[in-house]
Amino acid sequence: MNDLRTKALDFHKGGKLAIASKVKLDDRADLSLAYSPGVAYPCLEIAANPEDAYRYTSKKNTVAVISDGSAVLGLGDIGPLAAIPVMEGKCLLFKKFAGIDAIPIVLATKDTEEIIRTVQILAPSFGGINLEDIAFPRCVEIERRLIETLDIPVFHDDQRGTAVVTAAALISACKLVDKKFSDLRVAILGLGAAGTSIARLLKAMGIGTIYACNSRGIVTRKKPLSPFVLELLDAGIIDSYDDYKEDSIAEIMTGADVFIGVSRGNLLSVENVNRMADRPIVFALANPDPEISLEKIRKTKAYIYATGRSDYPNQINNVLAFPGIFRGALDAGFKKITESMCIAAARAIAGLVAPERLSPDYIIPSVFEADVVRTVSEAIKQSEETK
Amino acid sequence: MNDLRTKALDFHKGGKLAIASKVKLDDRADLSLAYSPGVAYPCLEIAANPEDAYRYTSKKNTVAVISDGSAVLGLGDIGPLAAIPVMEGKCLLFKKFAGIDAIPIVLATKDTEEIIRTVQILAPSFGGINLEDIAFPRCVEIERRLIETLDIPVFHDDQRGTAVVTAAALISACKLVDKKFSDLRVAILGLGAAGTSIARLLKAMGIGTIYACNSRGIVTRKKPLSPFVLELLDAGIIDSYDDYKEDSIAEIMTGADVFIGVSRGNLLSVENVNRMADRPIVFALANPDPEISLEKIRKTKAYIYATGRSDYPNQINNVLAFPGIFRGALDAGFKKITESMCIAAARAIAGLVAPERLSPDYIIPSVFEADVVRTVSEAIKQSEETK
Repeated sequence: MNDLRTKALDFHKGGKLAIASKVKLDDRADLSLAYSPGVAYPCLEIAANPEDAYRYTSKKNTVAVISDGSAVLGLGDIGPLAAIPVMEGKCLLFKKFAGIDAIPIVLATKDTEEIIRTVQILAPSFGGINLEDIAFPRCVEIERRLIETLDIPVFHDDQRGTAVVTAAALISACKLVDKKFSDLRVAILGLGAAGTSIARLLKAMGIGTIYACNSRGIVTRKKPLSPFVLELLDAGIIDSYDDYKEDSIAEIMTGADVFIGVSRGNLLSVENVNRMADRPIVFALANPDPEISLEKIRKTKAYIYATGRSDYPNQINNVLAFPGIFRGALDAGFKKITESMCIAAARAIAGLVAPERLSPDYIIPSVFEADVVRTVSEAIKQSEETK
Repeated sequence: MNDLRTKALDFHKGGKLAIASKVKLDDRADLSLAYSPGVAYPCLEIAANPEDAYRYTSKKNTVAVISDGSAVLGLGDIGPLAAIPVMEGKCLLFKKFAGIDAIPIVLATKDTEEIIRTVQILAPSFGGINLEDIAFPRCVEIERRLIETLDIPVFHDDQRGTAVVTAAALISACKLVDKKFSDLRVAILGLGAAGTSIARLLKAMGIGTIYACNSRGIVTRKKPLSPFVLELLDAGIIDSYDDYKEDSIAEIMTGADVFIGVSRGNLLSVENVNRMADRPIVFALANPDPEISLEKIRKTKAYIYATGRSDYPNQINNVLAFPGIFRGALDAGFKKITESMCIAAARAIAGLVAPERLSPDYIIPSVFEADVVRTVSEAIKQSEETK
């Protein structure tokens, strides 16, 4: 572990990103094109026709990765400066997997309105906005308001990116256990950014029943509820657990086909898994420690086990989704990333698992498999074209 | 001209900047260092010690080039989108000449308070802020307030960058005409961002007398003055022209040793130049058309003529200053770019003109000459170290 620390600190020394020039700039003639007087021509074109910003600037291929540093990985509210290494890492992934030029921007404010206004003010520079590691629930309001007001795609990866990859894994898992989405009973542990977004997407994809448990216990109309949770019930995204007797995750696990944990490590017991329906699907996505460890899951009747870890099988990794989603949206010039695009992306990712390779230990492709980004981006483009 | 337009539009197609990775990211092991779980280590270091952001992120070598698009080149208020090609061009210059990774950011607001607040919110991402092409007079307030409130260098290049290079050229010119700064009478035409900043720096460097003329005519206490101009008089930066009779540039040109034009093209006549003192120095810096053309200046008694144009001798080009100024400030970890640093930079640039090469057509080095950036950055570093 100490060795990983030393290697990691060394890896990040001096930062991970640089700016590169796409043009030749060797002499006075180049300079007179790149800057005054030549630069006036593209400026005038764009002033006359704003859409030309997509032709004569880097906007079309540039995404801002924006965070307030309030919910960074499993580290929590470490602030903007300490969040920079993660944002730079995210930008590297954008470049490596999708050829997108992403710029890390951390914000010295946690105020919802200030964050919204700041991103609106910055927006002309960018072709898209990837929100990252912003605390729940303000991340929901921020993403929603920015989608409404901006004319470029806005995507909070911790919400919708996680939902897309989880949905993809569940499509594959259902093939293995031969169950239909409409028949499934899902138990979600954790109703933060990821949990609510997963519930929303799965319900839109036709999941039968979703029960949930958050830090206040089981979600049921029999208890006083926060306005936020009530909204999820009223919208039919979460179902009320009406057989509610005691306030324990055990209750909603009983008979569940699928467990999705987006909470904290080691909250799930062997007994809880064994209460589930036949051939249970367990997605224990808390990072770095899953809700139930690989060691423990082997003592249960779980049929499929997925986590967020790269050293276990079936890694639910956002890198499968966001590069292709943005690649597709930028290439197609979409102004928003819609729910139907997210569903198309989930299906495309699941479709990358060849039927002959599909197994309980291989329900989702690796991020290094060829074609992931191309396939997802094509699915995004077609999802709207065929509308 | 049409040919330049075609070439320029072609040059800018697709934008001029890209993001590059400074690290290897080829396999799962690299990924686990660049992103989760390895990235947690630099995050924790920075959370414990914020200065470590300069060690473990790209902050130390990253500058934001920020504009609201309200005073772009000679084009005026063309808005943020149309300003992007210029900001990208500026970022290229940062990279080419100083190896600095600069990020273009245009703002969808022209409100002084919103611009200040936005830059404050963005600041943690960057090692320095280069303000660019923001309209006068709000650019003065914005730069001043940001310098006061931020712990990274803030520099509005159109103000202080222009002043540094103008001062450098004037140092060389004075050697040629064998006049001392303290004996000089300077006539400035234009009191915008550049004019006021040039006056401020020259006065700090010991210029004897500075008379000025702006769009309201000659600056004199005999007339009602705007609060802004009154402040310049009260601070002793501009001198009141008390022999004021009629409101014409001709009056302050009479007997002047130096003319500095930062106004509009073709405002200066042959007669005006011929009213100046012996061996007059004429800096006609309006872009793209100088206050007096090369053709006309040849009909005057002007001894030295400098402009902003790259196709004339003696180009007063900000590229001589800002790359080295930022390079020095970033390397030394300075929190501000002070007036004494600007003076040191001006002297360093003038010092690059070898005495044996100094001539009326060569008072300032070319931007492509070796050693400009290194010399300026060293001067910046030493200017504070020796304090």
